[in-house]
Amino acid sequence: MTNRVPDRAGRHELAIRRMGIDTYNEPIVYLRRDSAVCRAEGFEAQARIRLSTQRKSIIATLNVVSAELLDQNEAGLSEAAWRLLSPVDGEHAHAAHPEPVHSLSAVRGKIHGEMLGAGAIGEIVRDVAAGRYSPVETAAFLTACAGERMSHAETVALTRAMLSEGRRLSWPFAPIVDKHCIGGLPGNRTTPMVVAIVAAAGLVIPKTSSRAITSPAGTADTMEVLTPVELDLAAMRRVVEKEGGCLVWGGGIGISPVDDILIRIERLLDFDSDGQLAASVLSKKAAAGSTHVVIDMPVGPTAKVRSAAQAARLSRLMTEVGAEVGLSVEVLQTDGTAPVGRGIGPALEARDLLQVLQCDSGAPPDLRARSIALAAAVLEMGGRARRGAGSDLAAQLLDSGRAWTKFQAICAAQGGLRTPPRAAFQRVFEASAGGRLAAIDNRRLARIAKLSGAPKAPAAGVELHVALGSAIERGQPLLTLHAESRGALDYAAEFAEEGGMALTIEA
Amino acid sequence: MTNRVPDRAGRHELAIRRMGIDTYNEPIVYLRRDSAVCRAEGFEAQARIRLSTQRKSIIATLNVVSAELLDQNEAGLSEAAWRLLSPVDGEHAHAAHPEPVHSLSAVRGKIHGEMLGAGAIGEIVRDVAAGRYSPVETAAFLTACAGERMSHAETVALTRAMLSEGRRLSWPFAPIVDKHCIGGLPGNRTTPMVVAIVAAAGLVIPKTSSRAITSPAGTADTMEVLTPVELDLAAMRRVVEKEGGCLVWGGGIGISPVDDILIRIERLLDFDSDGQLAASVLSKKAAAGSTHVVIDMPVGPTAKVRSAAQAARLSRLMTEVGAEVGLSVEVLQTDGTAPVGRGIGPALEARDLLQVLQCDSGAPPDLRARSIALAAAVLEMGGRARRGAGSDLAAQLLDSGRAWTKFQAICAAQGGLRTPPRAAFQRVFEASAGGRLAAIDNRRLARIAKLSGAPKAPAAGVELHVALGSAIERGQPLLTLHAESRGALDYAAEFAEEGGMALTIEA
Repeated sequence: MTNRVPDRAGRHELAIRRMGIDTYNEPIVYLRRDSAVCRAEGFEAQARIRLSTQRKSIIATLNVVSAELLDQNEAGLSEAAWRLLSPVDGEHAHAAHPEPVHSLSAVRGKIHGEMLGAGAIGEIVRDVAAGRYSPVETAAFLTACAGERMSHAETVALTRAMLSEGRRLSWPFAPIVDKHCIGGLPGNRTTPMVVAIVAAAGLVIPKTSSRAITSPAGTADTMEVLTPVELDLAAMRRVVEKEGGCLVWGGGIGISPVDDILIRIERLLDFDSDGQLAASVLSKKAAAGSTHVVIDMPVGPTAKVRSAAQAARLSRLMTEVGAEVGLSVEVLQTDGTAPVGRGIGPALEARDLLQVLQCDSGAPPDLRARSIALAAAVLEMGGRARRGAGSDLAAQLLDSGRAWTKFQAICAAQGGLRTPPRAAFQRVFEASAGGRLAAIDNRRLARIAKLSGAPKAPAAGVELHVALGSAIERGQPLLTLHAESRGALDYAAEFAEEGGMALTIEA
Repeated sequence: MTNRVPDRAGRHELAIRRMGIDTYNEPIVYLRRDSAVCRAEGFEAQARIRLSTQRKSIIATLNVVSAELLDQNEAGLSEAAWRLLSPVDGEHAHAAHPEPVHSLSAVRGKIHGEMLGAGAIGEIVRDVAAGRYSPVETAAFLTACAGERMSHAETVALTRAMLSEGRRLSWPFAPIVDKHCIGGLPGNRTTPMVVAIVAAAGLVIPKTSSRAITSPAGTADTMEVLTPVELDLAAMRRVVEKEGGCLVWGGGIGISPVDDILIRIERLLDFDSDGQLAASVLSKKAAAGSTHVVIDMPVGPTAKVRSAAQAARLSRLMTEVGAEVGLSVEVLQTDGTAPVGRGIGPALEARDLLQVLQCDSGAPPDLRARSIALAAAVLEMGGRARRGAGSDLAAQLLDSGRAWTKFQAICAAQGGLRTPPRAAFQRVFEASAGGRLAAIDNRRLARIAKLSGAPKAPAAGVELHVALGSAIERGQPLLTLHAESRGALDYAAEFAEEGGMALTIEA
């Protein structure tokens, strides 16, 4: 070829501006339509674009700006793009067309019915982790894997690939026990009791929990009304070394970062597949350094797992895939037809769990029973009780006050035990007719709790006064809405009034 | 229930602000993180949100703004959200959680292997047309249908559903002929000749064309250097009634608006399925009022259709589905191994086609031959020539100058014939070694043409001086880059230098 071209590095240099626009984890770059770079490169809205500084380079989606939001020589960054590019002061960037993301051809192959090899899955997961997949591309990957289209081998490979992204913890103890709940059941806040009981029995359980994404409270939200949960890894290690257990937020630890990206898109689509679910849970547990995991799987018509067939299939998958990544997994199928405990929302759930830990005579019996059952399974797996004897040991640790003592010690190590707040605004809803409480719509109840402000308003939520199957008299209190503002209370009440209370009372 | 709640209409009223952010067709609503509505409703970034005025209501994706971009009581709208909501001056809006989009459960069913009924497909298409699907949801729908997962019946239903959205043209003539090229071949600009020839023969061909989405030129871009193409329906009708044919941009006519949304996501994902492709093309043709359609299907390793098997399958599908929606369809499989003509880019392609129409002795013979073959098929389908005699008639109409006269008349009716511009900057690339031109990478050639500025810079693009299979001598000019700015020329040249010229010369 003739005509050597001069080096063009430094052309279309762009000043970087943080736009202050939160698009969750989707990196967006904003450029003026009339900027030199848009005109020269032919960039159009929603195009994929590579933005690079001297030190870093990201792939982002382009939004084209026509108004006075930016100067012509500026590149605006969404919060996610800002985090990924992490520019230093005064640093400049340049924009280019990105090279095609190679692993997307494997996704297209999967769409056309090919199996994904471990190498291809590893590449996909690395690209997702690096933010090289747009949400639309991630959705295509998830959809191609859904509907039971993932083989056992693919699920194992996905679990391993997710495991190898992000940090992996190791502990100078063995075994490391853990428990996990496959969500969908409001108020099912057994983790604090399980941790307190099994740590009191001398097992090591470095428990990380998530905040709510679509629910009224995650375990981390509930624990946060009782004690600080945003510990970094060093602080978490100190708590675990001292007390044998912790109850912290997992987001500060940095394990399995891919999972967050995939889960967010799955929630937007409102589906997940067994394979994705198994890979998500198991990669997180293995990354946390766990060796023995008990999985609480509520089964019921409005829970996440809705049928016995699905429960059986998913249980087998989790056990088998767990074994392949070095995890002993035991699945406990539990009743998913009704909420557990009385409170739905961080502080209301914290009150329930304190009652259970303190052996208060008014403690919700279902929450106590379920906590004991799960702790029993962990105690048996961890070798502290022989098969069948776990329940007695768990109940004894609870009733003797040793679990409560351990819980207080863990909270003290995390920064101190606090008293849960009470909501300033409450409204009681009474039964307009008598009968029997025949059904509870968990999803709707969760919605009402969220509309009342949970989990952002920690005192907000729903307090349930009646249990499934019980006889109801006209005028009997059914539930109380709790809110931190009059507006939120009215809003949740209006929703409940208009669409029904999520409780089916049969005459 | 007790405690009636006061009507809360009018709460969280939001002033509407146009943000000037172009996200193509994805409606985005921007709200302050600390706004009353975000706090009360618990809205988070990337949530789906319903924004309503007195007159209209849209579903959009939420971006949360933390900086000084908005006031606390303002809702910012992206350009797409602004178009969909079309607020009047001073109009206020309120935000709410959207009801679930019902047709998404059909999409989830499809993901799990169920077949979609015609009713469900109609609902999906209506929801997509109304902007109720996020890009992520649209991607899930397209992925679930890809990989040959659409049945014949589903493809027919999808075609019908897309056809019933948007405008449908009718004409006081019969037959109405049309041609369509299943893209992927640079420079394949036969449409102007086909329209000129068949209109000269007395057939009616109201041709609408698209602009480039990912290619260096669409037919509308090429025609626009010769004559105005942005005609509205009334103006288009006048041209067709006067001259029997037109060459206008389809975007001004408003047929099959769903297609644009689906195609955009497919391009982002870089796949399309046979079913989607058939529904896309056929719904557009039927909506334009056509009765007889010839489809140019280039087949080659870097074209859209890559194998004879895919070509046969797609041809059969298009013919059969066409029949079900009242279209006679004939598919011509053509050579997709090399670009057609010499120019790639609007003005360069316009020069080629003028040479063919003017019977210039230097006209690209492949472009002429292909135009005659396609026109012949249309003439035969439209009853102007018996089977096998179309080529002779087409050649005669071209050689006699009648097609050129008709082309000029059509351009005059559209607003006048113009002379294509020439690029101010050019650079010739010569062969660094001799041999035989063994392969041309169409995709790479298109990329180089785009980097030089096409189609936005109409004079920009690539001029090819050599044909596939020809003998090449060292130092022989291979191609010339054309650009309207020195920067674009350098940029395209650098890309070509670094990654190779898209031409494989075998010694």
